[in-house]
Amino acid sequence: MRDVAVIGTGMTKFGELWGRSIKDIFVEAAERAIEDAGVDHVDSLYVGSMSPGLFVGQEHLGAVMADYLGVNPIPATRVESACASGGAAFRQAFLEVASGASDIVLAGGVEKMTDGADVIDVLATAADQEYEVYHGITFPGLYALIAKAHMHQYGTTREQLAAVAVKNHRNGAKNPNAQFRSEVTLEQVMGSTMVADPLRLLDCSPVSDGAAAVVVASLDVAKKLNKSFARVIASAQASDTIALHSRQSLTTLNAVVNAAQKAYKMANIKPADINLVEVHDCFTIAEIVVSEDLGFFEKGKGGEAAAQGLTSIDCGRIPFNTSGGLKAKGHPVGATGIAQIIEVYEQLTAKAGSRQVKNARRGMAQNMGGSGASCVIHILEAQ
Amino acid sequence: MRDVAVIGTGMTKFGELWGRSIKDIFVEAAERAIEDAGVDHVDSLYVGSMSPGLFVGQEHLGAVMADYLGVNPIPATRVESACASGGAAFRQAFLEVASGASDIVLAGGVEKMTDGADVIDVLATAADQEYEVYHGITFPGLYALIAKAHMHQYGTTREQLAAVAVKNHRNGAKNPNAQFRSEVTLEQVMGSTMVADPLRLLDCSPVSDGAAAVVVASLDVAKKLNKSFARVIASAQASDTIALHSRQSLTTLNAVVNAAQKAYKMANIKPADINLVEVHDCFTIAEIVVSEDLGFFEKGKGGEAAAQGLTSIDCGRIPFNTSGGLKAKGHPVGATGIAQIIEVYEQLTAKAGSRQVKNARRGMAQNMGGSGASCVIHILEAQ
Repeated sequence: MRDVAVIGTGMTKFGELWGRSIKDIFVEAAERAIEDAGVDHVDSLYVGSMSPGLFVGQEHLGAVMADYLGVNPIPATRVESACASGGAAFRQAFLEVASGASDIVLAGGVEKMTDGADVIDVLATAADQEYEVYHGITFPGLYALIAKAHMHQYGTTREQLAAVAVKNHRNGAKNPNAQFRSEVTLEQVMGSTMVADPLRLLDCSPVSDGAAAVVVASLDVAKKLNKSFARVIASAQASDTIALHSRQSLTTLNAVVNAAQKAYKMANIKPADINLVEVHDCFTIAEIVVSEDLGFFEKGKGGEAAAQGLTSIDCGRIPFNTSGGLKAKGHPVGATGIAQIIEVYEQLTAKAGSRQVKNARRGMAQNMGGSGASCVIHILEAQ
Repeated sequence: MRDVAVIGTGMTKFGELWGRSIKDIFVEAAERAIEDAGVDHVDSLYVGSMSPGLFVGQEHLGAVMADYLGVNPIPATRVESACASGGAAFRQAFLEVASGASDIVLAGGVEKMTDGADVIDVLATAADQEYEVYHGITFPGLYALIAKAHMHQYGTTREQLAAVAVKNHRNGAKNPNAQFRSEVTLEQVMGSTMVADPLRLLDCSPVSDGAAAVVVASLDVAKKLNKSFARVIASAQASDTIALHSRQSLTTLNAVVNAAQKAYKMANIKPADINLVEVHDCFTIAEIVVSEDLGFFEKGKGGEAAAQGLTSIDCGRIPFNTSGGLKAKGHPVGATGIAQIIEVYEQLTAKAGSRQVKNARRGMAQNMGGSGASCVIHILEAQ
């Protein structure tokens, strides 16, 4: 396999972009990434998107976006793994460049969620339709079950969950592309509207529109362009049962554990060698469980770590979701995995402004689909 | 890039499978393919499917199918390029094995179209929702425009269109997995209900349920298994404008021309070196246009060639759609591209029974999305 690098990035602001179409926002992100990379063409395009058919009545997004971006006749393919669609699209771009089939590939992600579809129903198509959704559960409920089990098993507290939201809003306030640039207090999180006990409104990532794109290239191309890039030192993906009730434990996400093991092995490093992590905090409990399953904290200690500030920027330990995460940056599902890569890239190329992690040399992006049935992990390294 | 081979195949019968779920049929096809390949595991899974969200309310098909097939925790990803989703999934499997990231990958395709959704509306999401579908056109109408233009420009006749359906039904009658195993006459095709002038009911591929899967492996693995396999000597994909009205010509499908050129170059062969072709005959006119754009017949002569029987089995020229094609075999959209690979594989490994093309050494599969905005082409060679 050839060495692969991220050489350019672009994204829209995440939020309620009512005046703009799914094509508009994808093209904006893609053009920015191509311009940032300084390339005059791309060989191929991947578009990560979870459910454009249900959200806006448009499938075939690969061809649609290639057309509106003006890059025909290059190959253009949509990739879908629910909320991990962006990470999965990045992985396909990585594999295509690694294989030698292409030198420069654009990997983008997009979702337009606020155009009128019933968002809860659409997102529920990422769970088991017959054995979960039909019986009435939706994603806040699934993650609430995980939270309840984690609290029961490890003594994780309501305050610890809230600490994740407080930290991610603090980071998001420093991110010009974030949907929410407002800080919140522990009291505000714990006093917000109940959604699915114990998860409250401020434990949940929002409904968002947005697009993100990165240009991936062979290391040879990256070096010739003579600009900053980050090397992709690991790409790993794993699956788990689609339904939560089929798992042996509610408090360990096996797809995360499996993908992480493969990623560390591929990069030949251990968790302590990572300087920052973007994780899939669709709900506050997700960040806590994932922080354990990635090996950064002992099982059951993720909540305590969050409350102690060990995952904050300048914490002296391991900053989580410097971008604001899904919680504050927003979660246009197909775009999320790509936006995570962008944050890691910006940190590794010292472009993260007031969110900058000092001496960031290696960063991880962990993207997840459903209640953890899919997990895609990438590790990037500064040049 | 490493050499890649198809080492096993499996599919369900195509048709109206009302009593079975999308999971059932995918698992049946996948298990058959794995058994046929004689492998004890697969490293990764791709599922080609166009619109399971709209058809059956289930996205996240990669993880769903990995779970129901019992192959967790392997990576599992859905790939979508409208009706070219199967071909695109096969291409991703090819790239993953070619890259060296995996040795054995399962590429499947599935669609469950008869469960109650408005099929015409769902299929229309493969066209430009804002500039085509909103104004009332659907796929029979788009291909009718292509047919009208081809008739006007090249003198293609109603009888020539019908000849494609007659030939494909004749082939399909010999295929135990085909939806329609009945032959039809020229008169029946030309007297069938008008759908979109000049296309009649028997010019159109049917609405189908079905699943198909193939096991792809490195050439090294294929050789060690000591059974019949076919080498993938070309994988190419191209895109075109999503909307028909944006093209310079209605009678040439540029994505087909571009993908074909890349495929011939990669395989270092010319059209005359191919012994059989599975093409995307969603409508009879599509087979005629594609037969020209692939370089088998001069532009404008595809209709004449079909009427003269040059594309029949044992025609002495180049058999098209020995499987019965989309027209007679059925067209569960996500499964179609994989089923094409299966027919080519069966021909190259002399397993095609009464449909067998003599001395078949190289075969092509041409899968298409929308009104030709996506095209994926693979060429396989007998060992």
